[in-house]
Amino acid sequence: MASELYLGYRGDDANTPWGKFFKPEMAPLPQHVVEALQHGPQGGMALLAYDDAASVAGEGYQQTENGYGVLEDGSYQVSVRTDMPGVTPAMWSWWFGWHGCDTRRYKLWHPRAHLSAAWKDGKDNLSYIGRWSLISEYIGSSLLNGAIQFVAPQEMGCPPDSDDAVAVCARLGAGDAPVDVGWFIHHIRSTQGGSEMRSRFWMGGSHIAVRKAPGVASKAVRPIASRILGDPVASGRNLLVHCAQEMNHLAGFLPELYDAFGDE
Amino acid sequence: MASELYLGYRGDDANTPWGKFFKPEMAPLPQHVVEALQHGPQGGMALLAYDDAASVAGEGYQQTENGYGVLEDGSYQVSVRTDMPGVTPAMWSWWFGWHGCDTRRYKLWHPRAHLSAAWKDGKDNLSYIGRWSLISEYIGSSLLNGAIQFVAPQEMGCPPDSDDAVAVCARLGAGDAPVDVGWFIHHIRSTQGGSEMRSRFWMGGSHIAVRKAPGVASKAVRPIASRILGDPVASGRNLLVHCAQEMNHLAGFLPELYDAFGDE
Repeated sequence: MASELYLGYRGDDANTPWGKFFKPEMAPLPQHVVEALQHGPQGGMALLAYDDAASVAGEGYQQTENGYGVLEDGSYQVSVRTDMPGVTPAMWSWWFGWHGCDTRRYKLWHPRAHLSAAWKDGKDNLSYIGRWSLISEYIGSSLLNGAIQFVAPQEMGCPPDSDDAVAVCARLGAGDAPVDVGWFIHHIRSTQGGSEMRSRFWMGGSHIAVRKAPGVASKAVRPIASRILGDPVASGRNLLVHCAQEMNHLAGFLPELYDAFGDE
Repeated sequence: MASELYLGYRGDDANTPWGKFFKPEMAPLPQHVVEALQHGPQGGMALLAYDDAASVAGEGYQQTENGYGVLEDGSYQVSVRTDMPGVTPAMWSWWFGWHGCDTRRYKLWHPRAHLSAAWKDGKDNLSYIGRWSLISEYIGSSLLNGAIQFVAPQEMGCPPDSDDAVAVCARLGAGDAPVDVGWFIHHIRSTQGGSEMRSRFWMGGSHIAVRKAPGVASKAVRPIASRILGDPVASGRNLLVHCAQEMNHLAGFLPELYDAFGDE
């Protein structure tokens, strides 16, 4: 598959109903993200513990809304907020199903980093919960072949989705080996004039496991996990940038896109 | 001890005469600090050599007032300035004695990183010179259990403290092993309308020593020192951020705090 991968649109890739939404230029990072990068890695106790993951669905804000750092078990955690005027939580529910059916849709999201996406089940209906999205993308300079295994919000302790709030939850693992390495939640809630996404990732450390064998973190899979995870400080920073870029980029035209294709 | 450590205030921690000064939100970094971070590690010869440490007490400014980098012996050096309108050098002399008596005071200084502080001698009078402050704090994502051994300015070649200038000088070592790893000076001098702090750190390299055995840098203590020091470039950056954050944060309310408790 690797030889077929390429960044951006080529040939007649744009020759789709949604092709005009491919925008190769990305906006600068929001100031609150720049400040988080300037601060650098945070102390573990200032970051959201995995055991408290569901609290992202609570009211208000948390101690670290934007930041990254290494936890005591060697895992790393990343948090970042995306302000999205004109966007509703429902648009994201739709997006997470819609984009995974076609690499050309996936590339709209992060034109500088996304390489391919397909549902493992090969179907193209629009749900995402309970499905596996097999993706290739760069995080920083590292190529990730990942299997994003979406789960229901309740599996991570979050309330069921509603008009006011959606929690996109997933187990993240290798796409080419039965190894899982992390978890994430993108929590989207309504605000005045739009919505905000508050993303939380937990990567590595105790989250490394042989797939379908919870509790078994075989030594044999550590090298595979290490290749995916890299240096925790550098990878945390890169993941924060990647997430901030793609979410801000898509949010810039998601209302129009949803208006055009949201009833598919 | 580790199980009792936590960030910030809990329960009735704020129920002290100074509790209202605990402010969990920290300001963005000053622009001159952001620029130093953007520049990244500097050449050793552009940084203040330890042998010239006392020159920080001289007039004017030095080649690198804000920056960090690795010196030829593998040590790292950090310099940073904090502008402090309304603050006097005497307020800092008072602060360095006053804060060390109580973890809840220490946490005022850096609410996102400070975990505990106590004087090794267990007394609570207000001097700091000649005393050891045992602290736990995050520098970046790394937890430091440190012994800050304050010395008189003259021991580092600086003039005695005066109304116009104070030099807070210390040897820095492990809190849980007889290993020293560095030195620092916070030089505070009067300016029009307040004062400025010019901080200088020298960490690792030739400053690693078995405590009370100057000149003996036993190979046996290198692993302990390495754990404390980490990668010199990353740690230099993190130390610069940490110092800039805590000094700016405290300077924002030090005049009020001193006004309320400075005669204790």
